[in-house]
Amino acid sequence: MDGDGISSATPTEEMNGSGNLMDFLDEPFPDVGTYEDFHTIDWLREKSRDTDRHRKITSKSKESIWEFIKSLLDAWSGWVVMLLIGLLSGTLAGVIDLAVDWMTDLKEGICLSALWYSHEQCCWTSNETTFDDRDKCPEWLKWAELMTGHSEGAGAYLLNYFLYILWALFFSFLAVSLVRVFAPYACGSGIPEIKTILSGFIIRGYLGKWTLLIKTVTLVLAVSSGLSLGKEGPLVHVACCCGNLFCSLFSKYSKNEGKRREVLSAAAAAGVSVAFGAPIGGVLFSLEEVSYYFPLKTLWRSFFAALVAAFTLRSINPFGNNRLVLFYVEYHTPWYMAELVPFILLGVFGGLWGTLFIRANIAWCRRRKTTQLGKYPVLEVIVVTGITAILAYPNPYTRRSTSELISELFNDCGALESSQLCDYYNNPNMTRPVDDIPDRPAGPGVYTALWQLALALIFKIVITIFTFGMKIPSGLFIPSMMAYHHHDWIIFKNWCRPGADCVTPGLYAMVGAAACLGGVTRMTVSLVVIMFELTGGLEYIVPLMAAAVTSKWVADAFGKEGIYEAHIQLNGYPYLDQDEFTHRTLATDVMRPRRSEPPLAVLTQDSTTVEDVETLIKDTDYNGFPVVVSRESERLIGFVQRRDLTLAIKNARQKQDGVVSNSVVYFTEDAPQLAPNNPQPLKLRRILNLSPFTVTDHTPMETVVDIFRKLGLRQCLVTRSGRLLGIITKKDVLRHMAQMMNQDPESIMFN
Amino acid sequence: MDGDGISSATPTEEMNGSGNLMDFLDEPFPDVGTYEDFHTIDWLREKSRDTDRHRKITSKSKESIWEFIKSLLDAWSGWVVMLLIGLLSGTLAGVIDLAVDWMTDLKEGICLSALWYSHEQCCWTSNETTFDDRDKCPEWLKWAELMTGHSEGAGAYLLNYFLYILWALFFSFLAVSLVRVFAPYACGSGIPEIKTILSGFIIRGYLGKWTLLIKTVTLVLAVSSGLSLGKEGPLVHVACCCGNLFCSLFSKYSKNEGKRREVLSAAAAAGVSVAFGAPIGGVLFSLEEVSYYFPLKTLWRSFFAALVAAFTLRSINPFGNNRLVLFYVEYHTPWYMAELVPFILLGVFGGLWGTLFIRANIAWCRRRKTTQLGKYPVLEVIVVTGITAILAYPNPYTRRSTSELISELFNDCGALESSQLCDYYNNPNMTRPVDDIPDRPAGPGVYTALWQLALALIFKIVITIFTFGMKIPSGLFIPSMMAYHHHDWIIFKNWCRPGADCVTPGLYAMVGAAACLGGVTRMTVSLVVIMFELTGGLEYIVPLMAAAVTSKWVADAFGKEGIYEAHIQLNGYPYLDQDEFTHRTLATDVMRPRRSEPPLAVLTQDSTTVEDVETLIKDTDYNGFPVVVSRESERLIGFVQRRDLTLAIKNARQKQDGVVSNSVVYFTEDAPQLAPNNPQPLKLRRILNLSPFTVTDHTPMETVVDIFRKLGLRQCLVTRSGRLLGIITKKDVLRHMAQMMNQDPESIMFN
Repeated sequence: MDGDGISSATPTEEMNGSGNLMDFLDEPFPDVGTYEDFHTIDWLREKSRDTDRHRKITSKSKESIWEFIKSLLDAWSGWVVMLLIGLLSGTLAGVIDLAVDWMTDLKEGICLSALWYSHEQCCWTSNETTFDDRDKCPEWLKWAELMTGHSEGAGAYLLNYFLYILWALFFSFLAVSLVRVFAPYACGSGIPEIKTILSGFIIRGYLGKWTLLIKTVTLVLAVSSGLSLGKEGPLVHVACCCGNLFCSLFSKYSKNEGKRREVLSAAAAAGVSVAFGAPIGGVLFSLEEVSYYFPLKTLWRSFFAALVAAFTLRSINPFGNNRLVLFYVEYHTPWYMAELVPFILLGVFGGLWGTLFIRANIAWCRRRKTTQLGKYPVLEVIVVTGITAILAYPNPYTRRSTSELISELFNDCGALESSQLCDYYNNPNMTRPVDDIPDRPAGPGVYTALWQLALALIFKIVITIFTFGMKIPSGLFIPSMMAYHHHDWIIFKNWCRPGADCVTPGLYAMVGAAACLGGVTRMTVSLVVIMFELTGGLEYIVPLMAAAVTSKWVADAFGKEGIYEAHIQLNGYPYLDQDEFTHRTLATDVMRPRRSEPPLAVLTQDSTTVEDVETLIKDTDYNGFPVVVSRESERLIGFVQRRDLTLAIKNARQKQDGVVSNSVVYFTEDAPQLAPNNPQPLKLRRILNLSPFTVTDHTPMETVVDIFRKLGLRQCLVTRSGRLLGIITKKDVLRHMAQMMNQDPESIMFN
Repeated sequence: MDGDGISSATPTEEMNGSGNLMDFLDEPFPDVGTYEDFHTIDWLREKSRDTDRHRKITSKSKESIWEFIKSLLDAWSGWVVMLLIGLLSGTLAGVIDLAVDWMTDLKEGICLSALWYSHEQCCWTSNETTFDDRDKCPEWLKWAELMTGHSEGAGAYLLNYFLYILWALFFSFLAVSLVRVFAPYACGSGIPEIKTILSGFIIRGYLGKWTLLIKTVTLVLAVSSGLSLGKEGPLVHVACCCGNLFCSLFSKYSKNEGKRREVLSAAAAAGVSVAFGAPIGGVLFSLEEVSYYFPLKTLWRSFFAALVAAFTLRSINPFGNNRLVLFYVEYHTPWYMAELVPFILLGVFGGLWGTLFIRANIAWCRRRKTTQLGKYPVLEVIVVTGITAILAYPNPYTRRSTSELISELFNDCGALESSQLCDYYNNPNMTRPVDDIPDRPAGPGVYTALWQLALALIFKIVITIFTFGMKIPSGLFIPSMMAYHHHDWIIFKNWCRPGADCVTPGLYAMVGAAACLGGVTRMTVSLVVIMFELTGGLEYIVPLMAAAVTSKWVADAFGKEGIYEAHIQLNGYPYLDQDEFTHRTLATDVMRPRRSEPPLAVLTQDSTTVEDVETLIKDTDYNGFPVVVSRESERLIGFVQRRDLTLAIKNARQKQDGVVSNSVVYFTEDAPQLAPNNPQPLKLRRILNLSPFTVTDHTPMETVVDIFRKLGLRQCLVTRSGRLLGIITKKDVLRHMAQMMNQDPESIMFN
């Protein structure tokens, strides 16, 4: 397809409209076959171009050994790209983890023995025996201690408090400035945009090298600043940028938007794989949540990329625990059937929280878009960071990074644990088996911890609504996981049989997290699988499933869209979702021109002049024009792309003698019979797509929507008994669907 | 859609061709909208019918509370069906497991204390301490002991041998007779047929109640008879039969072939879930291997069904180990990077074995089909069972059931293990940590065991080729898993660092099983996930993945098809697979009529008489006829189904006065202008599909194949500038694809 200009046109080739167009307009026009920014791609055409390319390589491979090797390399390039994506996204995830760890601790103090060590690494080699003492190892100095020499007292506390806020503000200011100046697309979680891109939309630069670099750096800054956001969504964006980067190495992927999207689907799987250490969950996430077109080949490749990424991250081992995530847990305590009731209640809570969160967040984002607020993004980030830091510091549960907190919540208490949540009275006469915690009476620390957690929960819920959607990289997963319900286990304590190890608080935290995430994102299978890979056991799949499905049902009852779809709609991206279209309209109700509008702009097969064509191109902004036999009969013979038409005429005017403004343009096999004084006609059959997609005016819209969705069309012509009546574009379909759902159809942003 | 005859035709309804046809031909013809046996379904039409049904229910639900409740029930019926499928297939799997356990042991002996106990259950309560002694508990009597009183000696051995063969022959004779007499569809693994059915083919009775009953019974008999087959494939068939059974409870599913197939996809997932105890693997198996149309909704429901099935089976607990399968293992020993080399070698071996197996098996099955052999299926089964039993008894590894063997192979040796494979010299002075096996020198038992295993491997490989495809229920999974490579670990023993626990034989068995299964079935992701769920740890995902992918690549190099596709092709089922179609043909090369053939049988919109139509129906066997404006213009206006035409004319002749043989049939809105002496014309617009699917004659076949595959079409009309040129049916597409691959196009079996 792309490549050599020497191609002999066999009769078959000449008949093949869409496939052949490239041979003709080869080298001189490097951007033929590409799309403009904010346009949708034509999947069918991309696929047919790739088949052509593949055919060419296969037939050439029989010619020489070198061509055969080239064809092998071509066949393997997909796996190579996957390997590279896995390696790079795993490495980036590891670097981000290490950097976040260090910078989060930097807000509180510094390691004197080695400045680049985080708190934990600094005290790792310390000789103190208990966890508590080890936390206060002499090598690690809080800022107040370093500056004033005092580590205790109100003055030191206030100084630490002040410096904590200052560092947070500095980090977030740096993050938002970098985004503003270098890569405006690096903000947000990126998942709504990636969904849109994967569905066949072009957003140039969204997955570019600059975005990759800036997003990686600002993600570290944003997470370290203590804002209520997670790195999981942005990691998917980072992985997709890696995917796009490696696509440019192979013309197979860089020159075909359809193939490129297959790579991006796999990259999204690798992103989730490193974010949660869940390769299978990542593949299912890509399949369930972000991808649009997901053939079996992509399934295998995604799985490969996700595995490579996970094992790269593992060999970096950022958390020093040989696990892929900080909050990996291994439970082995059983659960009881009666516990399904609180699990389902958690699901209901999760669903309600999801609905509330989506509504509040969308309302806030809409306000940001429409009012003065949107004009001061830097100020907004600074203010939110300030508020977050001021409120977060006094509470030990919000002061630390969110993933540390989750790690503590998911884990069961060991007898030696220093956490306040595990402050049970230890009976020194007891033999201390590890699992005996529920027997011991709770100490005051537990109650303090519960109050602090409740406050932390409310605080996180409120602040996350304002944080998600700001102009810095932000993810939702971690904050949502945070929003968990903990008081249940206090209630249950009274209900337990004495001596039995009956309630696992960590399990409740995990089920609560699944419920909240399910409510917000409406994932089910991938969510359960991610959680299952985090816990490493099939035992808890039923509680997780119960909570996730309940949460989805409850949330769906209040509104069908997850947070990502809601943001897609808020931004007016042309995304054709998987919902059934159930209205009884026909193609004739949707097609243009409407009854009151002027007739469709068409070309005739052998009576339009070059000048007419140029006028048509100048006066309209359609992406293409149908070609009919004559204006009287209106019988459709093909479709020609605006871009190809412009290029062909420009080319002919430059290179072909005798082509002037009143030359007749013809699309038939043979030149039309013209008067002898007419200038030389211009044959354009090669740019004519002889197999445009048509439906009749009686086709129900549900079928039309299905065709657009499954075949990935860009437009479709409407005929009745072979007569051209109108055209339906993807935009028309989306507008019609929005109208049918009483939404604002004018918000759709594309051409 | 189906139901009340009172439906007022609004203008919109009248225009909607395909949707409305049912209202007209309502109660009197109960089989309108159904398909004939061995025909393909039209997915687009099924979908549109379901949307109509849904629309009707939604609009009615606003009328009364009762209708609202009905609409809720309708919305929930999908989940109810899933629950029922999960419960029934879990229960059946449990019953099958228990029955197989008992009957396999029945070949060797009987439990005197309770006749319905298997060997293990019988000796469970025995007081003996070692495993070896417990195996010979007094309650369990071998046949020779029961009949002659002697348990040792050549006579007893021969008597046992003889009875073993007799029982095996009896079981297999019973199985094959039941299949022959009651349910011929109950034979084989069923997966090729289920793949075909899910792709939109009708095979009446294949998933019926009789098949369910007979398949369950004969599966137990066939597995117990000791034949080299597994219960995994047939369990998928059994689960699909359950799915079909429960479909008939809800008209939503029973009357719509498209919706029914969504349920069947989920049922297949439940089947794999109980076969391997792997719910996630089951869903992925359904997605990767058997399903054709797999929307997100089906993903969630499959997951639900798979979970319910797994937990039903777990609560039955047939193996007494709280696990879903006999060969569940939990490893915790690490593997080393250098071990990847043997793993990849295992993959190569698996790929070669897969290719060999498929070729040999297909050659044998083809011979069975074409020669005298196929006429004596009962005899064939008896002979193969006899040979299997004769050869299997002397070798302890083949005497037992295959899943017991796999269980032993997958497991690591514990110090107390009685298996010969674990016959290492125990040093009584050693403190016996559990993981110290490689330190101990191997005893003679290990070498005996290795010889026996090698013989068992060769025997299983050969006999499985002849077994798969016989006329009894047979699965492939287990025999393939069996075919594992074991000598590696002997080689590795020399290479190990002394004292280190370096090679896990069980892991090699498992990787080998994955490689062989991958070679035979060409699954990758679902296979790895199934194995991962069996081992319960992410640690071994890389070895498994490496082996599975290598095996697939090696096998693909020798031939693209897995065993199921090969059997689909052998049987000539009309299955449109997911492979890319890369030939450069156009729709015009494939459509009928060919140049030499008579013109297409068409109807005109207002000039054909009833008699003409009846003649056309009698003389041709097409499924439908295009309707054109006139024979001169050949402009297409719609398509009418043969079945609907027959019914409509029959109906009109009976009920409508004045319709005689020379009445004109018209498809237009208004009756044509006729001479006054003409009889009353017959209006048939309502059965006309006004939106037939069309492509132009220049459309590349790759696009046509894509459209057929993605939209699930049955036929497609070919036009040029609105003029009807021909028709392409799914059969034409398949025939053309077979031609292009130099296969016998006449083997495709449908209309």
